[in-house]
Amino acid sequence: MKTVTLAMGNGGEENQALISKIFYKAFQNDILNKKEDAAVIEQGNLAFSTDSFTVSPLFFPGGDIGKLSICGTCNDLAMMGALPKYLTCSVIIEEGFSMRELEKIVRSMKKELECNHAMVVSGDTKVVPRGSVDKIFINTTGIGEIRYRGISSNAITTNDVILVSRDVGCHGAAIFAAREGIDLASNLQSDCASLSDQVQALIQHGVKITALRDATRGGVSAVLNEWAVQSNICIEIQEENIPVTCEVQGICEMLGFEALDLANEGTFVMAVDMQDEEQALEVLHSFSNSANAVRIGSVSDVYRGKVVLHSSYGTKRFLELPSGELLPRIC
Amino acid sequence: MKTVTLAMGNGGEENQALISKIFYKAFQNDILNKKEDAAVIEQGNLAFSTDSFTVSPLFFPGGDIGKLSICGTCNDLAMMGALPKYLTCSVIIEEGFSMRELEKIVRSMKKELECNHAMVVSGDTKVVPRGSVDKIFINTTGIGEIRYRGISSNAITTNDVILVSRDVGCHGAAIFAAREGIDLASNLQSDCASLSDQVQALIQHGVKITALRDATRGGVSAVLNEWAVQSNICIEIQEENIPVTCEVQGICEMLGFEALDLANEGTFVMAVDMQDEEQALEVLHSFSNSANAVRIGSVSDVYRGKVVLHSSYGTKRFLELPSGELLPRIC
Repeated sequence: MKTVTLAMGNGGEENQALISKIFYKAFQNDILNKKEDAAVIEQGNLAFSTDSFTVSPLFFPGGDIGKLSICGTCNDLAMMGALPKYLTCSVIIEEGFSMRELEKIVRSMKKELECNHAMVVSGDTKVVPRGSVDKIFINTTGIGEIRYRGISSNAITTNDVILVSRDVGCHGAAIFAAREGIDLASNLQSDCASLSDQVQALIQHGVKITALRDATRGGVSAVLNEWAVQSNICIEIQEENIPVTCEVQGICEMLGFEALDLANEGTFVMAVDMQDEEQALEVLHSFSNSANAVRIGSVSDVYRGKVVLHSSYGTKRFLELPSGELLPRIC
Repeated sequence: MKTVTLAMGNGGEENQALISKIFYKAFQNDILNKKEDAAVIEQGNLAFSTDSFTVSPLFFPGGDIGKLSICGTCNDLAMMGALPKYLTCSVIIEEGFSMRELEKIVRSMKKELECNHAMVVSGDTKVVPRGSVDKIFINTTGIGEIRYRGISSNAITTNDVILVSRDVGCHGAAIFAAREGIDLASNLQSDCASLSDQVQALIQHGVKITALRDATRGGVSAVLNEWAVQSNICIEIQEENIPVTCEVQGICEMLGFEALDLANEGTFVMAVDMQDEEQALEVLHSFSNSANAVRIGSVSDVYRGKVVLHSSYGTKRFLELPSGELLPRIC
């Protein structure tokens, strides 16, 4: 009998297969078919996105499940050029969960809502018997007001360059380190952060954004591969330009993963018209969270649907969509 | 150390306390403060509501978690006079869950979406390791287009009468019977159903709806008590008028519960201007799911904030907000 495997939740190949075969197939419609992180509805005026958070541990360096649950959904809206506005919050709590920890989580949510100038307008609270859920899971679903139209994973051309907003892989590495009790990486913390201000600043400065995506599960590799397929282009990345900290690199070596495959929660990839590259980087550099934003690659039509990684030694290889189990419960 | 108890998810007293003390307190804003099942946003044009479904067993007489997850959220929208339009669907699946059962659940969702003329426009799929969740939990969050304005739990007056759309307690009783393997109740099945068509028919026939609420967790008792407090009125119910089937009554006697406290998933309570009672019942009687809709009570100002239950023997008592553990994982 076929069963659901952990790999099917990896944000990569098996995850895409599950979503396509089961969910897209049943629910198909024009909006869903666009395969964006947030749906565009109401004549292009609103963005609508959902995320469930199951991260373990609940508290980790750089954030907790509460902060993450607001950043995650608000960022999905921001990536469609929308200002987060209304959120719902639905929690499933295990019987016996500490009330103090619940209050701490809700305080984090409140604080992060304020950063986004958004509010929770509706909610649901379930308590389930011991063993039915591990501690607490949170779903947030958000509506944002679209301020810049036309951002799309399907619209990238050879006129675009590819930027990344900061060093990659911190969230995945920090969660792994926290889970395994690895102390050596004392400076390592999740990049968990709200990105709406940065996106709105780009818009206000007139940057022509082609595509925008926060590199969560499946990391930068998943975003680039999805874009290459959806826009039918070849994305060519210079490996030496990808910012990775020593701490993240260290964790990657332990895990046998690539930093590009690790989840981020406050890092985005952007396809932007090459004429606007300088302006975009200037705007991003004015924010501490994207002070090291950098161009990592360009777009060609050499291998359509593929991502090519160029090493500093002049060799090249395909960067594949992540596959396998990666890290479960990363978000 | 204070912990979250099962009773805090009962849809009754302890549940309200948890929501007020933790969530409302942190997230407070004018929309949330209205305490409706769906938030009214965008200048009164849209309703927005969320629900997470943890029901056990996943398949039960009259429905499954898939059907329930669409009915539940669409009904919350319908209860604010809105036509369900866009839904998100976020699933958390336990590693090892049967792919065939997942497909069956998604098919039920698709079928129920069609009944509501609604679509899923965005989603999220998480897979967590064995033991982190019991089989599958589903969150749906919906946006509906408001077709009738002003429905409110805060607006009931002594001009209103109280109707119920059908016999009460089927969902709670059916879940309990399925969970415990009780065979005697062969005709017993959940009332799980979408209510949007009935509500829209009431609107089209010009019925002046004051308040509307599907009687889910906490049952009819919870709805009436919340209304009595929110509208600062006394609701007087005639016990003999409340429709309860023999099967449900039998389960209630086993459980030591009242049918009025049991969850429903396709049964609603309505406060309507007494001049419109006849018209409302006529409309409801044209639907098989509400063919037995009936007036169960009226509104006075005798005991403000309270619900009074009049027995057929001429005695009366307060019907309290349900409290204690009731049935966990009912929805």
